[in-house]
Amino acid sequence: MQYELYYWPSIQGRGEFVRLVLEDAGADYVDVCRQPGGMDRMKQILGGHEPALLPLAPPFVRAGELWLSQTALIAAYVGEQLGLAPVDEQGRLTARSIMLTIADLIVEVHDTHHPVAMNKYYADQKAPALLRAASFREARLPKFLGYLERNLERNGERNGAAVLVGAAVTYVDLAAFQIVEGLTYAFPRTFGGLRDQVPRLLALHDLVAARPRLAAYLTSARRLPFSEHGIFRHYPELDP
Amino acid sequence: MQYELYYWPSIQGRGEFVRLVLEDAGADYVDVCRQPGGMDRMKQILGGHEPALLPLAPPFVRAGELWLSQTALIAAYVGEQLGLAPVDEQGRLTARSIMLTIADLIVEVHDTHHPVAMNKYYADQKAPALLRAASFREARLPKFLGYLERNLERNGERNGAAVLVGAAVTYVDLAAFQIVEGLTYAFPRTFGGLRDQVPRLLALHDLVAARPRLAAYLTSARRLPFSEHGIFRHYPELDP
Repeated sequence: MQYELYYWPSIQGRGEFVRLVLEDAGADYVDVCRQPGGMDRMKQILGGHEPALLPLAPPFVRAGELWLSQTALIAAYVGEQLGLAPVDEQGRLTARSIMLTIADLIVEVHDTHHPVAMNKYYADQKAPALLRAASFREARLPKFLGYLERNLERNGERNGAAVLVGAAVTYVDLAAFQIVEGLTYAFPRTFGGLRDQVPRLLALHDLVAARPRLAAYLTSARRLPFSEHGIFRHYPELDP
Repeated sequence: MQYELYYWPSIQGRGEFVRLVLEDAGADYVDVCRQPGGMDRMKQILGGHEPALLPLAPPFVRAGELWLSQTALIAAYVGEQLGLAPVDEQGRLTARSIMLTIADLIVEVHDTHHPVAMNKYYADQKAPALLRAASFREARLPKFLGYLERNLERNGERNGAAVLVGAAVTYVDLAAFQIVEGLTYAFPRTFGGLRDQVPRLLALHDLVAARPRLAAYLTSARRLPFSEHGIFRHYPELDP
């Protein structure tokens, strides 16, 4: 079965959490908007042309005859289909719970540079962005990182594996990898100062990065660079 | 089977999206923190005392031997268990997609009064709150309401039912009901001005409110009042 991923073609953004699952699984997929005419197809579906799903925003996916939207749901669904998820019910629920918490973190990363108006430029909301970023650096980011680190510690004690849920790498670990990548790009000083508090998360990042299919993807042209158009943006004044 | 819901005992908040499903289904459940000693139990679990789940924040739920966190996941899981969800796979995925989009709206409602620091008082972030609330009123709220209204219109044409997915009321409709309730409380002027654009959403609200078990719940002491401690807060300056 071929998957169709619909997402903005020039940023990693939320779509990257889906791309990582598809790439690591070696799935057959099309990144629709990076094909000729793909943006028009995405816009048609956002306008209501697909009977099965009217999404609010990308990413959304067609998986065979099925359509779904929302990053965390897509990552979980595709991961479960492709063997990148726990198979027991508690494991699946724990993975989904952690994935949704990572999705919350992604919103908070985004809001550091867009705290008051999603449809306006960063330059037009720099003063509140300085406040929001300070709160993110001092309170929220340490809280989320502690949550991931402790979940790694607990699962390691339980299952003897250096992953977030169960005994093998799942879509949630790929998402945690992307969080480390993004924080390293966007908040090098802040995250640099927190690295010694998250040794398990950094080890997980390296474990994921070394997976053969993922390593090949990361050095390919399919892996877009981070930039100041995505979720993770490096603005030095927000990372003093 | 008895469900255990863990959530703050004095606000509707995110827990209400779970309570509505449990109440409408007539499920056997305990609102743990509203029992003697319940807050201590919740805090223990947030501190790591439950082997199966370490949540970042409430709400979280025990369903038999299974534990899960994250509002949208809980509502979907409990709804699917209790017959308040579509049974076909596309219906389930569509419902989960819409529920997660409603969860995004809830974050944006919250951030109107807490745009820069979740751990500080509204009074300490009133200037950016005025900006964020303006963007919410003018751009984001109409976008989300249009999304719900169009999904109702499309499903009505497809399935001949005045609900968001499939042919009968599901957990997603209960969530949409709560959105209407919350907006009516928090943004009476703004939402009042938008009501004629969402006739189907208002009809759905009334349909849900008239369901016997839900109607009984809404007039019971179990239904907490809205207040300026929850997600939906009425600050007149944010709703001019």
